[in-house]
Amino acid sequence: MAPSRNRKIPKEPAEGDFTLFLWGPEKFARRESILKAFTTNPIFSKTSVILPSLARKDAWTRAAHQARELIRLKLQHNWSHTQFMEAIRLTDNMLPVQPQFRIFLSNLERQMTDEQKAIWVPKAERFEIFGSYAQTELGHGSNVRGIETTATFDRQRDEFVIESPTLSSTKYWIGTTGVWATHSIVVAMLIIAGKDHGNHLFLTQIRELETQRLMPGVEIYELGPKAFQGMLGTDNGAMRFHGVRIPREQMLMRNARVERDGTYVAPKNEKHSYGSMVTVRAIMAESTGWDLLKPVAVVYYYTSYRKQFRKNKEQEEETTVLDYASVQHRLIPLLAQATALVLVGQRIKKAYDAYTANYIKTGDFSQLEDFHLQTVGAKVYSTEIAGHGVETCRIMCGGHGYHALSGFGRMYANAINAVTYEGDNYVVGQQVPRAILKHWQNGTEAELPTLSYLSRLRETEREAPRIESLKDWFKPEVQRWALEERLVNLVQQHIEDTSAGRDTSYACHALTMAHGDFVYWKGFYELLQDLQQSSKPFLEPVASLFNVFALSVLQVPHHATLAAALPLSQAQHKTLRLAKSAAVEELAEKHLSDVIAAYGFTEYELDSALARSDKEPYGALFEEGAVRSEMSGDGMAHLWPMMVDTRQMWRRSREERGGKARL
Amino acid sequence: MAPSRNRKIPKEPAEGDFTLFLWGPEKFARRESILKAFTTNPIFSKTSVILPSLARKDAWTRAAHQARELIRLKLQHNWSHTQFMEAIRLTDNMLPVQPQFRIFLSNLERQMTDEQKAIWVPKAERFEIFGSYAQTELGHGSNVRGIETTATFDRQRDEFVIESPTLSSTKYWIGTTGVWATHSIVVAMLIIAGKDHGNHLFLTQIRELETQRLMPGVEIYELGPKAFQGMLGTDNGAMRFHGVRIPREQMLMRNARVERDGTYVAPKNEKHSYGSMVTVRAIMAESTGWDLLKPVAVVYYYTSYRKQFRKNKEQEEETTVLDYASVQHRLIPLLAQATALVLVGQRIKKAYDAYTANYIKTGDFSQLEDFHLQTVGAKVYSTEIAGHGVETCRIMCGGHGYHALSGFGRMYANAINAVTYEGDNYVVGQQVPRAILKHWQNGTEAELPTLSYLSRLRETEREAPRIESLKDWFKPEVQRWALEERLVNLVQQHIEDTSAGRDTSYACHALTMAHGDFVYWKGFYELLQDLQQSSKPFLEPVASLFNVFALSVLQVPHHATLAAALPLSQAQHKTLRLAKSAAVEELAEKHLSDVIAAYGFTEYELDSALARSDKEPYGALFEEGAVRSEMSGDGMAHLWPMMVDTRQMWRRSREERGGKARL
Repeated sequence: MAPSRNRKIPKEPAEGDFTLFLWGPEKFARRESILKAFTTNPIFSKTSVILPSLARKDAWTRAAHQARELIRLKLQHNWSHTQFMEAIRLTDNMLPVQPQFRIFLSNLERQMTDEQKAIWVPKAERFEIFGSYAQTELGHGSNVRGIETTATFDRQRDEFVIESPTLSSTKYWIGTTGVWATHSIVVAMLIIAGKDHGNHLFLTQIRELETQRLMPGVEIYELGPKAFQGMLGTDNGAMRFHGVRIPREQMLMRNARVERDGTYVAPKNEKHSYGSMVTVRAIMAESTGWDLLKPVAVVYYYTSYRKQFRKNKEQEEETTVLDYASVQHRLIPLLAQATALVLVGQRIKKAYDAYTANYIKTGDFSQLEDFHLQTVGAKVYSTEIAGHGVETCRIMCGGHGYHALSGFGRMYANAINAVTYEGDNYVVGQQVPRAILKHWQNGTEAELPTLSYLSRLRETEREAPRIESLKDWFKPEVQRWALEERLVNLVQQHIEDTSAGRDTSYACHALTMAHGDFVYWKGFYELLQDLQQSSKPFLEPVASLFNVFALSVLQVPHHATLAAALPLSQAQHKTLRLAKSAAVEELAEKHLSDVIAAYGFTEYELDSALARSDKEPYGALFEEGAVRSEMSGDGMAHLWPMMVDTRQMWRRSREERGGKARL
Repeated sequence: MAPSRNRKIPKEPAEGDFTLFLWGPEKFARRESILKAFTTNPIFSKTSVILPSLARKDAWTRAAHQARELIRLKLQHNWSHTQFMEAIRLTDNMLPVQPQFRIFLSNLERQMTDEQKAIWVPKAERFEIFGSYAQTELGHGSNVRGIETTATFDRQRDEFVIESPTLSSTKYWIGTTGVWATHSIVVAMLIIAGKDHGNHLFLTQIRELETQRLMPGVEIYELGPKAFQGMLGTDNGAMRFHGVRIPREQMLMRNARVERDGTYVAPKNEKHSYGSMVTVRAIMAESTGWDLLKPVAVVYYYTSYRKQFRKNKEQEEETTVLDYASVQHRLIPLLAQATALVLVGQRIKKAYDAYTANYIKTGDFSQLEDFHLQTVGAKVYSTEIAGHGVETCRIMCGGHGYHALSGFGRMYANAINAVTYEGDNYVVGQQVPRAILKHWQNGTEAELPTLSYLSRLRETEREAPRIESLKDWFKPEVQRWALEERLVNLVQQHIEDTSAGRDTSYACHALTMAHGDFVYWKGFYELLQDLQQSSKPFLEPVASLFNVFALSVLQVPHHATLAAALPLSQAQHKTLRLAKSAAVEELAEKHLSDVIAAYGFTEYELDSALARSDKEPYGALFEEGAVRSEMSGDGMAHLWPMMVDTRQMWRRSREERGGKARL
C-alpha cells in the first residue's frame, strides 16, 4: 500500500489543533507575524539572490543590511527578544545581530548588578550598542580554565587593564566581532595586586560608536571563510588586547565584586560561571529539532515527486521514490526523532526559563546542577541527531541533493557546527557520565530528576519482560526496559572502566547518547500520556511517531557500539527489527502526510528548489539552478578565446619539438 | 605511555621501503614528478588565493587556467593519462579537463571501432577537442533504462537526429559541459524506422571549435553552485537537444552497429553497456582511500600540537589532544581503514586494467561480471567509509576544523558526493545482494571469486572458535569467523526477506557493507601473508594496521544494525571491545608516527592551515585565516556609516512614535 500523500507545499503557515500542539501556540503566533513581515520585504527574499555564487564579502553585506532592517522591524513592532531571535533563524543567515540577545544581553541580565543593568540593558535592547561575547581563545576552547587573557586591576586609576599575553590567548571565533560589534563581554582572568582570582566577565568597548573604528589597543581581524560556505552572515573575529583600559564599573559584578580599594568579594557560588553556557544550550535544546524537520519536509516533498525504477516489472509507471524502504527507513525515523527533539526540547527550555526568571528575582540556583545536566545532555544528543540527520536527508535525495539550491548544503553547514561549538560534544558530553558516576557513588541520584533512573542500577535482580512477538515491542514497559537495560549496562561498564583507570573519553559518548535516548523517550512518553487524557484527534499520529522514535533508537542506535549493550536473543533481535519496520510502515501509510501537513513549513522556510509551491522540482532545478546561473550563456565569454587557443597548443608543441629535433 | 610522534610536516615526498610499499613504486614516482612541476608553478599555488572567499565564477576561472597549464605540461613532459589524472587530483580542484581521460577517452577506446578510434582518439589525446560524457538526465539517474533522450536514424541523410523530448530528459550534472566541452558522448535511445533499440552512445559536437559558441540546436546552461561550495572547478551542465544532427559514423559502433541501409546489428553481449561505469568505479576503488588519508594526516599533526585540559590534575602542562581515547579511537580506525582501501583498492584496479587491456585485444569479457561486482562493492564500501570518515576527521578537530583554511570542508565536499554519483550507494549497492542471491540459488558462487565465501552458507554446522580472552580476537581465524558469521546471518536474513516479499532496499545496505568488510579483510590478510614471506622491517606496523582494521569494523560497524547480526555473549562483546582498544593503543604508541611518516604527505598535498611545514597551526590560522581576510581592516569600511546610523534608529523611531502619540 502506498503512503497517503499531500504534496502541496504551503505558501502560508498551516492551521489546526495538531499544528498548534507541535509548534506551541506562542511560537506559532510569533512565526506567523514574522513570515508576514518577511515575505513582503524584498531584503529578506531567498530567491532574488543566489548567495552561494557570491563572493563572501558580498554575501555578508546582504546579511548586514538584513540585520539593520530586522532592528527597524523590532523597534517598529516592539518584537520581544524571543521573537527577534526567531526572526533571525528564519533568515537562515545567522545575522551579525544574532549574539545581541542570545548571549550578550542574557549575560548582562544575569551577571550585572541592578545599577549596572540600569545603564547597559536599555542600550543593548535598543541596539545603541552592538554586543558580542568573547570567551573562546585560539588555544582554549572547551577548557575555560585555560583562558590566558588577563584583566589586571589598576587601583590608582580605578580601571581594569585587559591584555592578551600570547598568540594562543587571541580571542578567536568571536561571533559578530570581525566587523559589527562595538562592545564585547570579555572573559578574562582577574588579577588584583598580583593575585589571580580566576575568570570573570568584563564589558569592553572595542569600536568607536561614531565611526566604527577600533578603540585604542584593540586589534581585530575578521576570521575568514568557514567550511561548507557556512555562516555566511557571521563576521567571526580574532581579537587581541594591548593594555586596553575599562572603568572598574564595567566588570560584571552581580556575583563576584571588586571594590574601590581592590578588595575582592568572591561569589557565593561558583556555579554561576557556567550559567551563560546553560542558557545557550537551553536555546539549542529547543531549536535543533526544527533544524532537522525542515530537510525532512523537503525530502518528503521531493521523494513523493521523484520516480525511479519499478518495484515490480508489471507496473506501468516508475515507482515513487518515497515508496522504497531505503527512503522510508531513513526518513521516517528522522521525522520521529526530530519531533521528540522539538516536543521534549520545548519542555526543557520552558522549565529553564521559569528557573532563570525566579533565579534573577530570588537568587535561588538550587536547581542549576540539574538544568546544567539536562541542557548539556540535550545539547549533545540533539545536535548529534540533527546535524547528521540533515546530511542523511541530503544523501537520500541522490545527486540533486548536492545542488546548492536544494538547500541541504546550507542547512547542514549551519547545523553540524553545533556538535563542536558551545563545547565539543565529546568533551562536554563527559559531564553526563561524570554526574552519573558521582551521584551513583554518593547514592544521591534521587536529588536530580534527570538521574533518578539510576536507582534501577541498585536493584540486584532486574526482571526482563517477556518479548516473544513483534507486538511486544510496542508495549511501553518493554521499550522502557530495553532503553534502561542498555543504559544500565553502559553505566556499569563506565564504572568498571573508571575504576580500572581507563580513558573513558571515547566510550562515554555512547553512554551520553543512550542517556539521551532514555531521557527523550521518557519525556515523549509523558507527553503522550497527557495527550491520552484529552482524546485529541491527533493522538494516533503522535503515538505512531512515539513508537517509531523508541524502536528506531533501539534498532539503529546513534552509536554503533550501543547495540552490544542490549543483550537480546537472535529471535528478539529479529522481532525488534520487524517491529521497527512495522512502526515505520504504519507511520508512512497512515500518518506521514498529516504530520508533514501539520508542521506545515512554508516554501519560504524550506527555501529549496525541491519544494516550491508553484513549481515542480525538476522545473525549479532547471530554471533556478541552470538557466539563472551567472556562468550560463556568455557569462564566461571572456574565457572563450583562451579555450579555443588551448585546443591549438598541441600543434605548437609539436612544432617546437620538431624544431628541436632538426637542430 | 604517550604515542611516539614526529610532527615534522614534509615539504618533499618521503622516501623508503615502507613508503614505496604503501604508494606502489609507479604511483610514487608519478607523484614526485607532479609535485616538482606544481610547487614551482604559481598557477597551482594553494596559498596565494583563498578560493572559498571568491565569487564562484572567479574560482572556476582559476580552475580553467590551471586546466590549460596542465595540458601544456602534459604535452611538454609527455605525461601518461594516469599521470595527468593524478595531477588533476593533486590540484584538489576537479578541473574541467577531468572527464577527458577518466570517462571520455576511455569510452572512445572501449566502444569505438578501430576505424573510428583512428580518427577520434588522437584528437582527444592531444586536447584538440574537449570531451564530456552525457548520461544522467534531470529525471533519470541510477536507472539508465529510464533515459528519454532519443537518437533517430535518418536514412535519407545517413544521420542520427538527437532530441530531448521532455524537461525530465534534459541531460543534467554533465561534468565540464556548462562552459568547457566541445564534444560529448551522449547516451540516447536508438530509434530506427520507429523501432526502439535501447541506449547507445553518440559522439556529438556541442560547441564550435573556433569560437566556443553552441552548435545549432544545442541548448546548454551551467548548473549553478553545489552544496558545501563543492567542485568549484567543475562547470557541470544542463543540456537539451533540438533536432541535433550527427553523421552515422559518430555512433560508437564497436559492439552494436547501424549499417548504411538502417540495419541494426545487435551487440554480442549486453554487458558492454555497463563497461564505462565499471571503469570509473575501478578508478574510485583505487583513489578513495587517499581522500581519507589526507584528513587523517592533518588530524594527526594538529592533535599532536593542540593541548587541552589535564588528564591527571598533577601534570604541569595540558594534555596533548592526540593522547585522549576520544581522538585515538576515532582517528586510528580511520587510518587503518583508509590503508585497507588503498592497498586492496590498488589490487582491484590493477586486475581490472589487466582485464581491460586483454579485453580490448581479444574481446574476452568473461570476467566482466566478477569485476562489475568487485568494483560496485568497492565503490559503495570505500565511498561510505571515506566520505563520512573525512567529516569525522573535521569534527575531531573541534571548532578550528570548521575554518575553511583547515581544509576539511573542501575535502568533505569533494569526497562525500561520491556516495551518490556513479550510482547512489543505496541503489547500486543492491547489485551485491542481488548477485549473492542469484548465485546462492543457482549454486554457482564458485564461478565468482568475490562470492566464494557463500559456500560456507551451505555448511549446515558452522563451528564457532573458542573466544575467551581479548588475545583470541587477534587470531585471523577468529576475525574471519566473526566477519563471515555476520555476513552469513545477513545473507540468510536477506533470503528470508526476499522470499517473504519484503522491500529489502534499506536492509541490504548493511549487507553490502558487511560484504565489503569481509572482502577487504580478506584482501588485506593476503597482502599481510605475502609480506610475512619477505621479512620487511615494516611488517609490524602493517600487521598492527590490519588488526585495527579487523577489530574496528567488528566492534564499531559501518552500519549500526550490523552488530545484532553477530551473536556474541556479553563476555565476548567485552573481550572484543578490550581487544579493539588494545589494538588501537598499540598502533598509537608504537607505529602511528612511522605510518604517517611513511605516507609522508607534503604540506602541498594536505593544504591545511593546521599542517604547514614552516608554521604552527595557531600561527597559520591567525595569519592566513584572520589577518589575510578580505573583510579585515577597512575591507568593509563602506558599510561603517550604515552601522553607525543603525545605532541611532531607536531615537528616530521613538520620536516617530512620540509624534504619532501627540496627534
